[in-house]
Amino acid sequence: MKSKWIWYYGDFEIYHSLKMQTRREEYDYHFPPFWKLDDCWHNVKFKKEVELDKPTQITVYAKGKGYVEIDSRLNSNAFEKVITVPEGRHTINIYVSEVDSLPCAYVEGDVIVSDESWLVSHYGKGWVNAGASNDYTDKNDNPQEFKFCYEEIVPVSKKSVDGGVFYDFGKETFAKLSFDRLEESIDIFYGESEKEALDIENTYLRVLTTDIKEQPCRAFRYLYIKGDESKYSFKAYYEYLPLEHKGTFKCSDELINRIWDTSVYTLHLNSREFFLDGIKRDRWVWSGDAYQSYLVSRYVFFDENIIKRTILALRGKDPVEKHINTILDYSFYWIMSVYDYYEMTADVEFIKRIYPKMKSLMDFCLSRLDENGFESKVDDDWIFIDWADMDKTGAVCAEQMLLLRSLETMTVCSRLLGIDSDYEKHEKALKERINKHFWNDEKGAYIDSFESGRNNVSRHANIFALLFGYADEAQREKIVKNVLLNENVAHIKTPYFKFYELEAMCSVGNLDVITQQMKSYWGGMLGFGATSFWEEYNPEKAYDEQYEMYADKFGKSFCHAWGASPVYLIGKYYMGVTPVSAGYENFEVRPNLGGLDWFEGTVPIKDGIVSVKIKDGVVEVTASKDGGTLVWNGERYLLEKGITKRIALS
Amino acid sequence: MKSKWIWYYGDFEIYHSLKMQTRREEYDYHFPPFWKLDDCWHNVKFKKEVELDKPTQITVYAKGKGYVEIDSRLNSNAFEKVITVPEGRHTINIYVSEVDSLPCAYVEGDVIVSDESWLVSHYGKGWVNAGASNDYTDKNDNPQEFKFCYEEIVPVSKKSVDGGVFYDFGKETFAKLSFDRLEESIDIFYGESEKEALDIENTYLRVLTTDIKEQPCRAFRYLYIKGDESKYSFKAYYEYLPLEHKGTFKCSDELINRIWDTSVYTLHLNSREFFLDGIKRDRWVWSGDAYQSYLVSRYVFFDENIIKRTILALRGKDPVEKHINTILDYSFYWIMSVYDYYEMTADVEFIKRIYPKMKSLMDFCLSRLDENGFESKVDDDWIFIDWADMDKTGAVCAEQMLLLRSLETMTVCSRLLGIDSDYEKHEKALKERINKHFWNDEKGAYIDSFESGRNNVSRHANIFALLFGYADEAQREKIVKNVLLNENVAHIKTPYFKFYELEAMCSVGNLDVITQQMKSYWGGMLGFGATSFWEEYNPEKAYDEQYEMYADKFGKSFCHAWGASPVYLIGKYYMGVTPVSAGYENFEVRPNLGGLDWFEGTVPIKDGIVSVKIKDGVVEVTASKDGGTLVWNGERYLLEKGITKRIALS
Repeated sequence: MKSKWIWYYGDFEIYHSLKMQTRREEYDYHFPPFWKLDDCWHNVKFKKEVELDKPTQITVYAKGKGYVEIDSRLNSNAFEKVITVPEGRHTINIYVSEVDSLPCAYVEGDVIVSDESWLVSHYGKGWVNAGASNDYTDKNDNPQEFKFCYEEIVPVSKKSVDGGVFYDFGKETFAKLSFDRLEESIDIFYGESEKEALDIENTYLRVLTTDIKEQPCRAFRYLYIKGDESKYSFKAYYEYLPLEHKGTFKCSDELINRIWDTSVYTLHLNSREFFLDGIKRDRWVWSGDAYQSYLVSRYVFFDENIIKRTILALRGKDPVEKHINTILDYSFYWIMSVYDYYEMTADVEFIKRIYPKMKSLMDFCLSRLDENGFESKVDDDWIFIDWADMDKTGAVCAEQMLLLRSLETMTVCSRLLGIDSDYEKHEKALKERINKHFWNDEKGAYIDSFESGRNNVSRHANIFALLFGYADEAQREKIVKNVLLNENVAHIKTPYFKFYELEAMCSVGNLDVITQQMKSYWGGMLGFGATSFWEEYNPEKAYDEQYEMYADKFGKSFCHAWGASPVYLIGKYYMGVTPVSAGYENFEVRPNLGGLDWFEGTVPIKDGIVSVKIKDGVVEVTASKDGGTLVWNGERYLLEKGITKRIALS
Repeated sequence: MKSKWIWYYGDFEIYHSLKMQTRREEYDYHFPPFWKLDDCWHNVKFKKEVELDKPTQITVYAKGKGYVEIDSRLNSNAFEKVITVPEGRHTINIYVSEVDSLPCAYVEGDVIVSDESWLVSHYGKGWVNAGASNDYTDKNDNPQEFKFCYEEIVPVSKKSVDGGVFYDFGKETFAKLSFDRLEESIDIFYGESEKEALDIENTYLRVLTTDIKEQPCRAFRYLYIKGDESKYSFKAYYEYLPLEHKGTFKCSDELINRIWDTSVYTLHLNSREFFLDGIKRDRWVWSGDAYQSYLVSRYVFFDENIIKRTILALRGKDPVEKHINTILDYSFYWIMSVYDYYEMTADVEFIKRIYPKMKSLMDFCLSRLDENGFESKVDDDWIFIDWADMDKTGAVCAEQMLLLRSLETMTVCSRLLGIDSDYEKHEKALKERINKHFWNDEKGAYIDSFESGRNNVSRHANIFALLFGYADEAQREKIVKNVLLNENVAHIKTPYFKFYELEAMCSVGNLDVITQQMKSYWGGMLGFGATSFWEEYNPEKAYDEQYEMYADKFGKSFCHAWGASPVYLIGKYYMGVTPVSAGYENFEVRPNLGGLDWFEGTVPIKDGIVSVKIKDGVVEVTASKDGGTLVWNGERYLLEKGITKRIALS
């Protein structure tokens, strides 16, 4: 029997999200997020009914104050004492309160152990199954502290600069500094670029006149320490999650290989308690950013836990008072992410657990529809979509498409759980309204806003229409011609929205263009010496003009998760592996060289792995489980578990 | 300009309630409450718009991490640094996050200071005025720790007992032990009675094999410390709120005087962060208990702050998932308490702030009405009313009367704030339903339950009908005869409900009976050496049979707030001071000797004090403010501020 620490379901994530997101630093102060952060419940009870053939012993450990009760208060016991549970049917209750952290419990025993089968309550409505994690199974584990791995890293070079020492660690990293000796106060300047570390007036992450020996993890490649070098010595420890790199890729183009590797590293650095936007800044959890990380990470880590953690953390507790991250679109991505997670895992149990919070968020959204039945800005809602010029007057088309996609998710999930709902009705009506109000026949495209009368066309809504299948065949052709391939429609400037644009292009066009775009855009960053991908990149600017963002000289994040999308594009459209039914019970493999001479790699799927190779005139695909279909040149080949399918290139 | 620490309004109370209520101890473990405890928001922002003739300087202090922004993020500053605010119109924002405690801020400056005029947000809907307190006005104050006063107390006697020392502190107290020397582990046994301290197997509060030098406050009169007396030395510090004893009373009967003094002391011991039920047990905040403390304390401390704190703490945060303390009646008392507070203070500002939470609680109650439109038990709701035999089948009459009283409160408060509501409609319909279903003509009384068919009559609902004026003149007469004065109707056994019974008797009968009841019931406890009043008292049992309660040998609390009601009865019915309009703008004084030879005393009112004396053949009343009317022998005499009204007893 394996014990696990247990807590109120979802609270581990909410608590660590509170801790993590309030850790952001900027210059000499902390910068807390500008949205509602919830906290875990601090007073909870756990319950388990047992039926015993013979008496057994348990010892209960807890983080918090409280007691253990067998059947009734008259048989109450302190923690950390051996308790005998008599034979027969009994109810074990564990009461734990912890004012300033996450209350949790651990039951050690031969027969009775703590795990997700225990029920938990915060003394609200009813009981739910407890939360637990395979990462916290030892009684000496502490779920109040998130568990990471550490590896010592050493500078690849150092030099003296103006009364201090400048260290280069060779690549972007996220590490804590541990001083075994610190005899005088020093100033520490962290830089993702050399310039940032040395421009001490403007260094984003810096610690002045410090004598603290344990410096928390921060993002950097370069360190500049001002102070007498003989008075201190330190080690640096890279902090990371031990994620397995299940997805791999190698091809004939070394630049593409470096783009793959750097994308994976960028995503890995941002895969922590949750998926972060960036490790230097904001170190926050943004729903729209995370949505892409869910999809990208599927092609390399295929880690379900970090996705579930991020979904739970983002949503927080009821009641919903604002959109997630205050952004309309980010509420929709949150709802949509549940479907994507389901498609990846077929994990109905999670859908069941999260459904009430999907519903309350969707109820919130639907309660704010305007007189035309569209979701538009209420109070200080933020209509984001992208850092881009867009006509955001009244109802914005791209938002309605995300709302529609969210309603579709609600329909699918409620049906899956056998719950009656009228989301489908909403969905159909909304689809009609969108086409009626936003499709502009003259432009042959969706316009941003119908209320302004300006009929402005931007790429965003049109990309969604292609990706989500909201445009019919005739509309699709027009969109490709009038928008995607139209140089007069403003280009996408962020890797964030490039994700959707490139995917839309993958889904309609040939991959050779994508290969070239990857090489020029992501390759451009590598050309500037990037060791992780950036928050924003303008190929038209010199390297020294790249640092600035948000009016901060070194404001730009040089390690931003949304820069990792090549992993997704390569996995999904080059190696071509996609689920056809939830949890990859059925899946397709549609390999595509995309102009490369050869490639080989692996794509993780639920409970398995698919190896794909196009090399030496042969397509080779092997799947470790049944259910796959190789699609090549219009022909479909069933894949059998473990048996390599080889087809000569024709 | 006076600065105050500021926080999210209501969070100071919610946070300290979480801290305090999870501190309960019992034997060798902690015993957290079995209801939902909320926590403060941990990420908040404060805002103030200023208009300056000339530049001024501020320094911002905070408990938590964050920064200060003048107008925009580009002008952001760390805490504890002097910031210059330029002349003109500016917005100052302070962002504070604090993961494990209450985030709060303090602005020091010549012109700009922090106080309730600042706005605060938890990033939910809109802004509210910040919370603050006159108890936290120094920058070195810390609102994360509740501020108490301390006074060293010394034992009045000590003796050696079986390898230890037994100390008697002379009276019930609540104190921390501070060991300046503790060379060996000791066992400490706390006793409200001598027996409890010495019966070490059953002592309720005890600390075994401890070497902790600072022992937190606990309730006791007696201490028994096992261990070598030469190896330790300690001091004891009584912890208390510095409440002014504004109400005073002295009379011809020494026993009544002792009852008054002991009642005041009992209430004072339980007046802490909030009004507690008892200082040994539960050390929790119970809405029904607190409701009485609000009313009783009005006649001695007249402290508005502890009442507001307790109301805010009890209610916690939305959404409402359960009744307050899980008890139906306790939700109703909570709503009712707001009206009583208003009657006491005329504090419309507080009503405005608390109204949304009154509404959401009432919405919750109304959402659970049964098919007859009555509030009955749903799920594991607790129908308490009293520790008494009562027919609790289906809808219980006493609960409906409390619901009706709560609806009346809602009507009054919504009207006061100019808010449209249909509570009055609900109220009228409910009143009719109650009379139709619960008034039994044959019994000439209200019955507990109509659903059971048993037509059981208990005192409780009938007492409410008298107190709240729900019985018409004919019904009142029947209730007095058939219930109050009927020996066949089971007697009230708790001081808790005796509060309502005695008040009902005061309101209908002559006080001589009450004087006798006080002397026999409360005097009975004094006869057993009580130095504070108990949770329960059965005059028919010997002293040694009084300790037990809830199946614990020393389970009974010997210092229970609800034992203090003589203060209320004396203040309201003997000295006879009651408000006629909110905040005592008009008030009446109807003195009544109640069989005593003489009395004299003072009764605090809003912004004033009333002195009442009946002695030496003269009634003398002086009020420190206008608006009073002395009613004596059916005659009404206007009281003028500061001028003593004297009337010869006729």
